[in-house]
Amino acid sequence: MSEEQENDMEQLIDDCISEKKYGEIAEKLQECLSEKKYAEVKNLLSELNAVDIAEIAYEIEDDRLPIIYRLLPKELAADVFVEMDTEQQELLLRKFSDKEIKEILSGLFLDDTVDILEEMPAALVKRILKQADKETRDSINSILSYPEDSAGSIMTTEYVNLKENYTVGDAFEKIRRTGPDKETIYTCYVTDKSRKLVGIVSARTLLLSSPDDNIADIMETNVISVDTHTDKEYVAREIQRYGFLSMPVVDKENRLVGIVTVDDAMDVLREENSEDFSKMSAVTPSDKPYLKTSVFKIFLNRLPWLLILMVSATFTSFIISRYEDALLNLSVTLFACVPMLMDTGGNAGSQASVTVIRSIALGEAYPKDVFKVIWKELRVSLMLGAVMSVVCFGKLMIIDSIYNPMTPYVALTISIALFITIVLAKLIGSTLPLLAKKIKLDPAVVASPFITTIVDALSLIIYSNIALALLG
Amino acid sequence: MSEEQENDMEQLIDDCISEKKYGEIAEKLQECLSEKKYAEVKNLLSELNAVDIAEIAYEIEDDRLPIIYRLLPKELAADVFVEMDTEQQELLLRKFSDKEIKEILSGLFLDDTVDILEEMPAALVKRILKQADKETRDSINSILSYPEDSAGSIMTTEYVNLKENYTVGDAFEKIRRTGPDKETIYTCYVTDKSRKLVGIVSARTLLLSSPDDNIADIMETNVISVDTHTDKEYVAREIQRYGFLSMPVVDKENRLVGIVTVDDAMDVLREENSEDFSKMSAVTPSDKPYLKTSVFKIFLNRLPWLLILMVSATFTSFIISRYEDALLNLSVTLFACVPMLMDTGGNAGSQASVTVIRSIALGEAYPKDVFKVIWKELRVSLMLGAVMSVVCFGKLMIIDSIYNPMTPYVALTISIALFITIVLAKLIGSTLPLLAKKIKLDPAVVASPFITTIVDALSLIIYSNIALALLG
Repeated sequence: MSEEQENDMEQLIDDCISEKKYGEIAEKLQECLSEKKYAEVKNLLSELNAVDIAEIAYEIEDDRLPIIYRLLPKELAADVFVEMDTEQQELLLRKFSDKEIKEILSGLFLDDTVDILEEMPAALVKRILKQADKETRDSINSILSYPEDSAGSIMTTEYVNLKENYTVGDAFEKIRRTGPDKETIYTCYVTDKSRKLVGIVSARTLLLSSPDDNIADIMETNVISVDTHTDKEYVAREIQRYGFLSMPVVDKENRLVGIVTVDDAMDVLREENSEDFSKMSAVTPSDKPYLKTSVFKIFLNRLPWLLILMVSATFTSFIISRYEDALLNLSVTLFACVPMLMDTGGNAGSQASVTVIRSIALGEAYPKDVFKVIWKELRVSLMLGAVMSVVCFGKLMIIDSIYNPMTPYVALTISIALFITIVLAKLIGSTLPLLAKKIKLDPAVVASPFITTIVDALSLIIYSNIALALLG
Repeated sequence: MSEEQENDMEQLIDDCISEKKYGEIAEKLQECLSEKKYAEVKNLLSELNAVDIAEIAYEIEDDRLPIIYRLLPKELAADVFVEMDTEQQELLLRKFSDKEIKEILSGLFLDDTVDILEEMPAALVKRILKQADKETRDSINSILSYPEDSAGSIMTTEYVNLKENYTVGDAFEKIRRTGPDKETIYTCYVTDKSRKLVGIVSARTLLLSSPDDNIADIMETNVISVDTHTDKEYVAREIQRYGFLSMPVVDKENRLVGIVTVDDAMDVLREENSEDFSKMSAVTPSDKPYLKTSVFKIFLNRLPWLLILMVSATFTSFIISRYEDALLNLSVTLFACVPMLMDTGGNAGSQASVTVIRSIALGEAYPKDVFKVIWKELRVSLMLGAVMSVVCFGKLMIIDSIYNPMTPYVALTISIALFITIVLAKLIGSTLPLLAKKIKLDPAVVASPFITTIVDALSLIIYSNIALALLG
């Protein structure tokens, strides 16, 4: 390849990457492969970042993927493997020789290995573990034994461990010797003889100290740590809150057993946010991007919720049927405002519920705050209810009257019902998530759609009764 | 204080911190202050992390805050200041002498200084900038000049800058000399004579290399960078995607002008997620935690949306009025199912819209994918519509018939309307956010509530017309 061609290619790659046109690079790679231009494939791959290669790999045909993977520069292979989709990891692992599996294993960090194993079928896991040395196998099994969603399940045991009696020079010596296998060397952990965590020291502090300084003198002793059984989302939020690059994980005896790194924390938070978005819109969360999820899977994720909510709407139908004749006798126009009432109730409720659910997720509100929340929402809803019902009254008399003539009494009835609906919706919307949390249910699951159903039913009953009382 | 007392206190602090009982520590501090036990206050503060002290400070009375702040260990003062609320920062800055302002400024990183200045009143900003040296002032002004929400506005100019002809030894020497003022030393940036970014080298690589190695030989040259005008959320997502600790920011000539660090990226993502949650539930986003936001502010954040949505529901009222008489002549029971139809339409729509909005936010879907999305949602909605309408028909004939006797024709009418409503809701819910993005509107704002209003109106028209056609 001439230098000009090479520059052209580099430009092409830069453009594709910055515009996320992975398909184009994938095509180019497969074209080179068909023409047996292996050197060019290698060259192209070496220009790319592991994360981008994994995205490109997704666009490559299954039978070509192993060939392209084998053409990867050695130092990139493990990094690319970690970033790939489960399906592609499985495909590759099935094609790999025992020797290749061994190579991959030695290139992976422990926590990544565990993540991958958790998704693989049992037979494949067995074959993979066979290639691991005993120490690795033991570490993997211990991490696998922690509960799902616990700090233990996402931690890595590959951290830099220093002793109190080390000097800075000793520390550097240890980092140089063991560093290549450690997930991070930027925060080093100091333990005593019984492996209890006594301090941390950052690579920054080490670099800015003199080689003769004692670790015990320069280490930070106010150490914040989490337990192996702490919820992983809590750990991720604490890493974010404190701005840590990693968080130490200790067992019940305060012995250091691993660390959780900031990149894994970011992944946990992203997943959690996506899950919350899904749940709030009544969809079973999926761990795959929308456009990569199959139609049937999307169908399955959405169906049960739609069904449950449709069936629960039987309630509202029942209530309407019960009051229908009575209301029709009062005024035919009362029905026209039912959707407005219900939608406003639903919106008012979800404003409160989403706010509270988000506060719970961020660790800003707890079930113990329920009275604070009720007091707050009560005042907010009284203000909102007042303004909304006044505007509603005006709207009914000025706009709606044009096509739907009504007496001021009817408009008043609707406005009062709106006021009560807003207050109720806010109180239910804000307290239900806290109650859910209290009884260890997922606050996001009880969110908007369910609250809408409850508020719908209540507001219809209130509306009908007010109408009967005022107009009957 | 005896050793036992000290241990007790440490235990108390640990418990309070792990259970986020900041109020209790605040009380303890104020108690010590009243009793003039300054040493004890100092002692207590020195046991705490800057982030936690900032949370505690929130619970301390305004007139006592400056005293407690002045008792902070010097090395913590700037860190605590950065983590505080804007109100408290302003309160302190107003009380500070010029000397104290100078001290704070020298302890702050540039990006943090800019963040704080952006929130302060003009007169205070002027006073603060007067205390900064010319170089700092110039840097601050240059960052302030970048558009809000751009990479430039959140970057820091304090990074470690190496040259290609350095050795690893030179690099360490430079890090030791300039490191204390740099926001991160873990990724160093290599520039050529014209300040163009040519490579990066991590502290890890430096530590694992020999002092005589040349930077040019060990640096990574496939550098991923962003432009000063790139959207800050995009930058944050790229940092997350690549697992970077920092991302270089270059100007139009590819000259390195700053870096964005991972902790700032996490903050951007958290804010963005909170904003999206707010917008999707029709609330104006607030940058303060829910429990710390005033009732009036919450009221203001929620009112306009409720008003808009209530007024837009006039549509549905109008449609119902228009068809009311005709429908009542056909069958009195038709009305009872309107809420079920509307809710299911709303739920089906928001399932699709939230999924697509989230995909847009994560950079997984773009407006150009609109046809892919339509094709996907069409298939999903046909499947969902089919299952839902069959179940609905059964439910109507078996459950609803008990209290609301209806002919199979009425049930069929409702089921067909449900089918069409679901398909329409999915198509509108999935395409509207993409269209919003295309015309540079915020996809999250057009979300659930608005889609609900549109779907409500459409489904009512369809329902009425099907009823008139089949039963009329």
